[in-house]
Amino acid sequence: MSLLALLAAVAASPEPVTLPAKALAPAEIVATAPAVDWLPIAATELLVMDLAPDAAGRPRRVVIQLLPAPFSQGWIGNIRKLAAAHWWDGTSINRAQDNYVVQWGDPDGEDKAKAKPLPAALIEVPQSEYVSANFYGNDGGVDDVIGFEIEAKTSRDPYAATTMFHGGFPVAGHFGSAWPIHCYGTVGVGRNEPPDTGSGAELYAVIGHAPRQLDRNIAVVGRVIEGMEHLSTLPRGTGDLGFYKTAPERTPIRAIRNGTDVPDLPAFEYLGTQSKSFARYADARANRRDVFYIQPAGGVDICNVPVPIRRRK
Amino acid sequence: MSLLALLAAVAASPEPVTLPAKALAPAEIVATAPAVDWLPIAATELLVMDLAPDAAGRPRRVVIQLLPAPFSQGWIGNIRKLAAAHWWDGTSINRAQDNYVVQWGDPDGEDKAKAKPLPAALIEVPQSEYVSANFYGNDGGVDDVIGFEIEAKTSRDPYAATTMFHGGFPVAGHFGSAWPIHCYGTVGVGRNEPPDTGSGAELYAVIGHAPRQLDRNIAVVGRVIEGMEHLSTLPRGTGDLGFYKTAPERTPIRAIRNGTDVPDLPAFEYLGTQSKSFARYADARANRRDVFYIQPAGGVDICNVPVPIRRRK
Repeated sequence: MSLLALLAAVAASPEPVTLPAKALAPAEIVATAPAVDWLPIAATELLVMDLAPDAAGRPRRVVIQLLPAPFSQGWIGNIRKLAAAHWWDGTSINRAQDNYVVQWGDPDGEDKAKAKPLPAALIEVPQSEYVSANFYGNDGGVDDVIGFEIEAKTSRDPYAATTMFHGGFPVAGHFGSAWPIHCYGTVGVGRNEPPDTGSGAELYAVIGHAPRQLDRNIAVVGRVIEGMEHLSTLPRGTGDLGFYKTAPERTPIRAIRNGTDVPDLPAFEYLGTQSKSFARYADARANRRDVFYIQPAGGVDICNVPVPIRRRK
Repeated sequence: MSLLALLAAVAASPEPVTLPAKALAPAEIVATAPAVDWLPIAATELLVMDLAPDAAGRPRRVVIQLLPAPFSQGWIGNIRKLAAAHWWDGTSINRAQDNYVVQWGDPDGEDKAKAKPLPAALIEVPQSEYVSANFYGNDGGVDDVIGFEIEAKTSRDPYAATTMFHGGFPVAGHFGSAWPIHCYGTVGVGRNEPPDTGSGAELYAVIGHAPRQLDRNIAVVGRVIEGMEHLSTLPRGTGDLGFYKTAPERTPIRAIRNGTDVPDLPAFEYLGTQSKSFARYADARANRRDVFYIQPAGGVDICNVPVPIRRRK
């Protein structure tokens, strides 16, 4: 269901709505959602990055959830191969640009003489894969888009005809096509100039306001679901585009593994984006009525409706 | 001029448009803008926060530009009095919540027995001041809104009928009213539950995706124009709402001063939001045609059009 349709459905609910004396804040709606509304995130969907410990010796683990089909599966296949080959071990975080991205991979990747060789099994993925051209005809896509209609006149997203959720991820749509959206915490594939689309060996995470101009121009492959603060608080690089000027400034990556290869990885779950709880949560994000607020916004952009994710009890 | 009207004006320009072989990136448009398009930011508009040096002994200075009239002038008057009284010296940054805000002031402000007394000259500002109700009839407002019309059908902002710039700041509008917008780097006034609106002694800066739900619910007073990385990289607090659990985790504030009281403060300037250069820049932010991009977005949200600001040569 599109974000707008979802909000409209709550507003037009035929059920008698009894607002509590104090309306619930979004976090309270999430905290009281029934267990059945929470869906498991399989370890096969996860990628785990262990950075070198911080200055105080504390571990820094970043957990990334990869996008579901039909999006970006070519790059995600490469990423799984790179993780299985332990290719990232000993690489580093090479860039931190304020209000934009943190980026990691081989610091010598641009230097052919010094670049770390990539596994031979990686595939080249074409630009056409930035968008799922037949999303609404794709079995992978229909679950979360029931009731979807192009509503260009009423949609309030500046970048697309509509926005919605698919498998718990924010996506944008336009005339039957759909593509993943860049929000805070989104992970994507660094690349050079087109037609290069990147292999997946160079990755970035968004640490600022949603850079939606990147949508359909770069491969989105997932999002950070735990440990985001280990990326967002990294010192900003002082070189062009926030690259670190010297090697000691780079944060070493000890290992990146597929979730299935990490024995001590906890289980995670997300609030199902088709659940009533999620609809109430999205409505509350668009119209804050809890006690702190005096003026509900009457709308919300999809990056301001972060999908609730937590460790499974 | 509204952001949409501005983009439409560039698209419909009667001048023959000769795109260079490689279209300019937004940063290139800014770098080549003529000097006349840059407007000075007076020292009277600035607030300067000096944090304790970082672990390596490097100074951490944050420069804040205060909002122009008619917005939030009651709180801004209080803030100038607090700075003149050196009230913040010895206070601290008490909160850092990932993808939300960093907040500073008296760490004991909620404890009546221990709270630092406020200067007697501060005024109480009512909630009505969150919005400028007669913006288009106000001499302070007309300069940047020439050609403004309510275009609810075509506006693509999820939170307001239209968005525009006023005196170099992003503002939203609706039927003759206008109010300042929360973007990355925006500075606002912390408060308790309404009808309290805060004095200005407790301030926050946005360090994540634009929390537009706060618009019209809290007083926006300015934005960080230099030193943002000293706030955005602070360790996140692990208490509720990102408050630090222990005093040693707080970053001390050495001083906050009005810009006119800082002898070594450089001069700043911003790219005038009525200039042709700014119109081209905003258009390029909405439609990236430089060599990295293959699919211009066709739109942009106002927080993704950060107003260029630099030190004046």
